[in-house]
Amino acid sequence: MNKLSSLLLVLPILFATESSFSQSPDPQMIMAKTIIKQALVNGKSYDDLGELCAQGPRLTGSAGADKAVTWGKAKMESYGFDRVFLQPVTVPKWVRGKNDQVSIVEKGKKPVSLSMCSLGLSPGTPKDGLSAEVIEVHSLKEVDSLGFRVKGKIVFYNRAFDESLVNTMACYGGAADQRSSGPSVAGKYGAVGVLVRSMTNRLDDVPHTGMVHYIDSIPKIPAAAISTIAAELLSQKLKTNPKLTVSMKMDCRNEAPVVSHNVIGEIKGSEFPDEIILVGGHLDSWDLAQGAHDDGAGVVQSIEVLRLLKSLGYQPKRTLRAVLFMSEEVGGIGGKEYARQAELNHENHIAANESDRGGFTPRGHSIELSDSLVEKYKTWKKYFEPIYADMIIRGGGGVDISFLGKLGTHMMGYVPDSQRYFDVHHASTDTFESVNKRELQLGAAAMTIMTYLIDQNGRF
Amino acid sequence: MNKLSSLLLVLPILFATESSFSQSPDPQMIMAKTIIKQALVNGKSYDDLGELCAQGPRLTGSAGADKAVTWGKAKMESYGFDRVFLQPVTVPKWVRGKNDQVSIVEKGKKPVSLSMCSLGLSPGTPKDGLSAEVIEVHSLKEVDSLGFRVKGKIVFYNRAFDESLVNTMACYGGAADQRSSGPSVAGKYGAVGVLVRSMTNRLDDVPHTGMVHYIDSIPKIPAAAISTIAAELLSQKLKTNPKLTVSMKMDCRNEAPVVSHNVIGEIKGSEFPDEIILVGGHLDSWDLAQGAHDDGAGVVQSIEVLRLLKSLGYQPKRTLRAVLFMSEEVGGIGGKEYARQAELNHENHIAANESDRGGFTPRGHSIELSDSLVEKYKTWKKYFEPIYADMIIRGGGGVDISFLGKLGTHMMGYVPDSQRYFDVHHASTDTFESVNKRELQLGAAAMTIMTYLIDQNGRF
Repeated sequence: MNKLSSLLLVLPILFATESSFSQSPDPQMIMAKTIIKQALVNGKSYDDLGELCAQGPRLTGSAGADKAVTWGKAKMESYGFDRVFLQPVTVPKWVRGKNDQVSIVEKGKKPVSLSMCSLGLSPGTPKDGLSAEVIEVHSLKEVDSLGFRVKGKIVFYNRAFDESLVNTMACYGGAADQRSSGPSVAGKYGAVGVLVRSMTNRLDDVPHTGMVHYIDSIPKIPAAAISTIAAELLSQKLKTNPKLTVSMKMDCRNEAPVVSHNVIGEIKGSEFPDEIILVGGHLDSWDLAQGAHDDGAGVVQSIEVLRLLKSLGYQPKRTLRAVLFMSEEVGGIGGKEYARQAELNHENHIAANESDRGGFTPRGHSIELSDSLVEKYKTWKKYFEPIYADMIIRGGGGVDISFLGKLGTHMMGYVPDSQRYFDVHHASTDTFESVNKRELQLGAAAMTIMTYLIDQNGRF
Repeated sequence: MNKLSSLLLVLPILFATESSFSQSPDPQMIMAKTIIKQALVNGKSYDDLGELCAQGPRLTGSAGADKAVTWGKAKMESYGFDRVFLQPVTVPKWVRGKNDQVSIVEKGKKPVSLSMCSLGLSPGTPKDGLSAEVIEVHSLKEVDSLGFRVKGKIVFYNRAFDESLVNTMACYGGAADQRSSGPSVAGKYGAVGVLVRSMTNRLDDVPHTGMVHYIDSIPKIPAAAISTIAAELLSQKLKTNPKLTVSMKMDCRNEAPVVSHNVIGEIKGSEFPDEIILVGGHLDSWDLAQGAHDDGAGVVQSIEVLRLLKSLGYQPKRTLRAVLFMSEEVGGIGGKEYARQAELNHENHIAANESDRGGFTPRGHSIELSDSLVEKYKTWKKYFEPIYADMIIRGGGGVDISFLGKLGTHMMGYVPDSQRYFDVHHASTDTFESVNKRELQLGAAAMTIMTYLIDQNGRF
């Protein structure tokens, strides 16, 4: 595109969007537009994310997670929130092995090493590793029907994302049971190990980790993800050699639980201090990268909501809380503990908004309420139109805030565009460089506008 | 985000979007959803883009542009369109120098080389380069008011993007006059050279090129873009040393015009063959990278519109044309020639849809018509909702199709998300790797749905 085109495009676009900045006398619209400009021109979320990512990976129970807790507390204190405090949480400690590996072993041939990563909570293999024939499956059901025919074998879950689905969250939701439940289903029938095709829309050589939900009554067998390219290779080789054996050698392990913390920052409400509006994300990440999108973005956007409103001299009627939850990736422990404390202390969380779908360009919010209530929130669509974030749909909030549901909290989730999320999700590619500054800032603006509207009007 | 969250999120999202795939009996909705699934599951646009990018940069008049013409013709022939042909166009040939450079020269200090690129159509400097004092300005107006005080100097245009604007096309539109018109405005008053801050939202060391609109009656002086970081550095040094001199040494040059081609593919209409619906993008690119977003994306998406409809066995009522325009970046020559031929041949282009804003996630279409007509096109919003591409606003089409306006064509432009576009625009970063497969495919789907609706219903 050249200069002429830009003018052709821009003038009418200005007409269509920017000029709407100057029309309505609606004070809420004026505030929404003020928030947007402040987020874009004087936003801190991107610099904050750079600092957070510089702390290194933040796996639950790790030193990196502790550093992130210290950073989060100091950061919110530096912004002068009314109250910043830590909430102790006992979390699992899983440690990835240094030399974990998976190889295809064929008689008379050099072993072929596959791009892999051990899955969260997986035990290691015996010291010398294990070798077994591989049986490829595409669903948990298939394993149930095979039953004890998988005994002594490595079960290879290779169901790809359904690319016909427009929303990649649906692609993930349709495949992730292989990783979370697959190991226990296979273990039930005596399988010795599990390999899972990585949860991503991409065909590449990057493995994606994630947590396994092991069932205590069933033998816990080693489980690893392999890249989608490795999965294609293994599947192909199995077609010509069904007796193919694979060796797994992993020294990952589970250690004793440790104490970590949720980090909470608060601005007290002037009229209804007992009504809490929560914005949050999770501070822990996986260990293969910086967790920039998952969920560094949600952490800095939540902090930014309070900082932006404060920087505009806005005095909230209700109490605003930014909560950085610990251990979302491994059991949602921080969210559970936060809700337990909220109940114990008879706190009234009227609404909670979680950002945990990446720092991508905004689409809107999903609200975990009845259609009729969602319709009411849709009357606020216009305030999000200036940043093209006016999608308000019925949908989930987020794991961390989900435990507040039983307390009657209105739960919602910030929804960015989903197309690029699983390119980096739980993988070594989830780095600061993959985040776009303006996309991150616009997301913070969208969450700030929602927070402001609930503070002004109360929830529906 | 972990598994539990994905389910929390997905089920309602499925409810909100995917299930709408099965509701309406509206045959146009069924076709729209068929197009979307076909684009995502069996789309060819991403592989086509990989092939096109592998041809190398496609600067107008270069061997790379010729290779792209050959590729485009062969590609559309391979898809079995009814007619594929070339339309000769005489285009300018500008050649970038191999050792172009700009350096800050301070007495007693080592010269500091700045990250730069010569601007399109710029002449070279004298063989030994030129050195002069630098005068920093922020607008053309400022140069007019300085007048002959810029004589003998290098004018440094350093007005940054206005980051308060949500749409980056508006950021670009508000700054690009420095690059396009700045050199002639400075040349008018005897300046010897021009430096321009790169047109990008990013603060990085990547220079962004683009065309200069030299006015023939004014001395044509050498002009280069420097990276935004280089611009900040130069500006800072000027504050402490206003007498700072900069040396420019460029051996870029303009050669005699050459003959190139627009590439045109067509599927004949069965009922109204004389009514043409055009989809297009420009085949030429800048020379610093592969022009993957600008405008490789528009090229492959335009081809994909015809291929998708054909692959679905759809028989269009009207004639569908994919046009790959030459030399958009340098004068919009291909578009002008195409419109001239259309007028000569009394062709009736009822609508033209251009993709030239990158291959990013879809937002919708902008239509270059009156508000009342745009309102009519908005009645089609629902067909774009399944891919969140239902924004239909009054706005520009594109440079290449703009010359059809005088023939009464309904001109529109495909609108992807704009936030990342100027990170790569006209720069070495505009590579295949920066394009997301599904975002590109969804854009092709959006253009195909619009083409299908116009074909079925005629234009409003």
